[in-house]
Amino acid sequence: MIKRDLLYEGKAKRLYETSEPSILWVTYKDQATAGNGAKKEAIAGKGQLNNQITSVIFKKLKEMDIPSHFIREVSETDQLIEKVDMFDLEVVIRNVAAGSFSRRLGVDEGTELAFPVLEFYLKNDELNDPLINDDHVLALNLADQKEIDEIKRQAHNINNSLIEIYKEAGIRLIDFKLEFGKTVKEQIILADEISPDTCRLWDEKTNDRLDKDVFRQDLGDIIPLYQEVLDRLTTAQKEK
Amino acid sequence: MIKRDLLYEGKAKRLYETSEPSILWVTYKDQATAGNGAKKEAIAGKGQLNNQITSVIFKKLKEMDIPSHFIREVSETDQLIEKVDMFDLEVVIRNVAAGSFSRRLGVDEGTELAFPVLEFYLKNDELNDPLINDDHVLALNLADQKEIDEIKRQAHNINNSLIEIYKEAGIRLIDFKLEFGKTVKEQIILADEISPDTCRLWDEKTNDRLDKDVFRQDLGDIIPLYQEVLDRLTTAQKEK
Ligand SMILES: Nc1ncnc2c1ncn2[C@@H]1O[C@H](COP(=O)(O)OP(=O)(O)O)[C@@H](O)[C@H]1O
Ligand SMILES: Nc1ncnc2c1ncn2[C@@H]1O[C@H](COP(=O)(O)OP(=O)(O)O)[C@@H](O)[C@H]1O
Ligand SMILES: [Mg+2]
Ligand SMILES: [Mg+2]
Repeated sequence: MIKRDLLYEGKAKRLYETSEPSILWVTYKDQATAGNGAKKEAIAGKGQLNNQITSVIFKKLKEMDIPSHFIREVSETDQLIEKVDMFDLEVVIRNVAAGSFSRRLGVDEGTELAFPVLEFYLKNDELNDPLINDDHVLALNLADQKEIDEIKRQAHNINNSLIEIYKEAGIRLIDFKLEFGKTVKEQIILADEISPDTCRLWDEKTNDRLDKDVFRQDLGDIIPLYQEVLDRLTTAQKEK
Repeated sequence: MIKRDLLYEGKAKRLYETSEPSILWVTYKDQATAGNGAKKEAIAGKGQLNNQITSVIFKKLKEMDIPSHFIREVSETDQLIEKVDMFDLEVVIRNVAAGSFSRRLGVDEGTELAFPVLEFYLKNDELNDPLINDDHVLALNLADQKEIDEIKRQAHNINNSLIEIYKEAGIRLIDFKLEFGKTVKEQIILADEISPDTCRLWDEKTNDRLDKDVFRQDLGDIIPLYQEVLDRLTTAQKEK
């Protein structure tokens, strides 16, 4: 596979075309951002860790019959993915109250939710990714009702699998963000990344943060934490 | 009916107990607020107008088989209502993009929406009435699924009737906020008020604003506008 023109440079990744029109080459960047890019820092080693964590997770999900855009790793920081037509949506599932959910709704961080709460956000940096409801998704033509239902079904399914995957690594999955896209065959599949940048991960025993909140809140160096997540995920794999 | 102890003083109304436990006495205040009370002014004559507008509208809705908490007017500024157990929800329906919808989602004010968009807000002044989705309503125990469905059904029904009522008065109903409560018999009914404080109303011909946006945006005196709305609603009634 040959890496061709840069297609898109985002906050965390670069997407390149390849010799194959349906396949993209992703490079994970050594950059961390928070508050929609308001805080931004170069962090050596981060791209490598997120590429590897995302790869491990997509592989585990595949073993659990959950398809994604992931094809294979091509280097420490790079992977090949199936090119899809992205929904301009961020899909968040919350098992435990934290972050903006706690702030906006006045629910103490750490409160177990009665059921996994699903939220849609409009993926639009200029508008600061506002929370939207199903009517907004329809009125803004972001997805139709059938697609909404399918995205929700898959997201809840992925939540169940991710809870298991992280649990085997001694980690509580508090909440996470997913993105979905449509293949040329009009199939909806999981895309983008699943990493400590996109999940809130708390140590099962100590509730220590193992995710981007440590960067958001200036609580220290994230590299050892992300490394810990990767090590635990791969150890859990080997022990199986 | 005898007015007894003050039960609650809100931003726009005072609620009193009466000699009858299931009936409340409402006094509409001469006060306007915007931005959750950030802007606040005494405006002589406003209480009277909102009491009368709300009364006319609740009477018209009743003729269209839409029940509400409204019983009868007892003075220019006062009315009797059925006491209900309020849902801590504000229910907004939007026919045309305006206000926070336009700002948050980047849709030009005045854009006709493909269908009436329904939104729930958590009624909580401290939290600034945040937008919430159905999962939030359930997780925060604000209503159960059956109640959500019934509230949505009624709100859309009310929207259809209000569009008609205002149309006969030469007014476009852009959007509005409703509140619902449960009677002692566990029936869900429309409560609170329906006035230019809670509806965006644009003149059918000129698109001139006939509502609280004129106060919010310091565009002039609202009293003649609210009077115009009342006059048009009552003239429309007589012409029928
Ligand atoms: N399989 C895919 N096909 C096409 N685009 C994708 C795919 N997976 C992710 N993307 C998009 O690529 C970009 C990933 O880069 P990222 O740095 O995360 O960007 P952003 O700053 O926009 O979040 C995002 O816009 C994401 O929606
Ligand atoms: N039928 C009813 N029974 C009980 N409470 C009601 C009823 N109708 C409206 N209310 C409540 O009475 C208060 C009305 O006063 P208002 O000045 O609008 O208050 P706020 O500033 O809280 O919006 C609101 O809290 C509203 O929810
Ligand atoms: Mg991204
Ligand atoms: Mg009110």
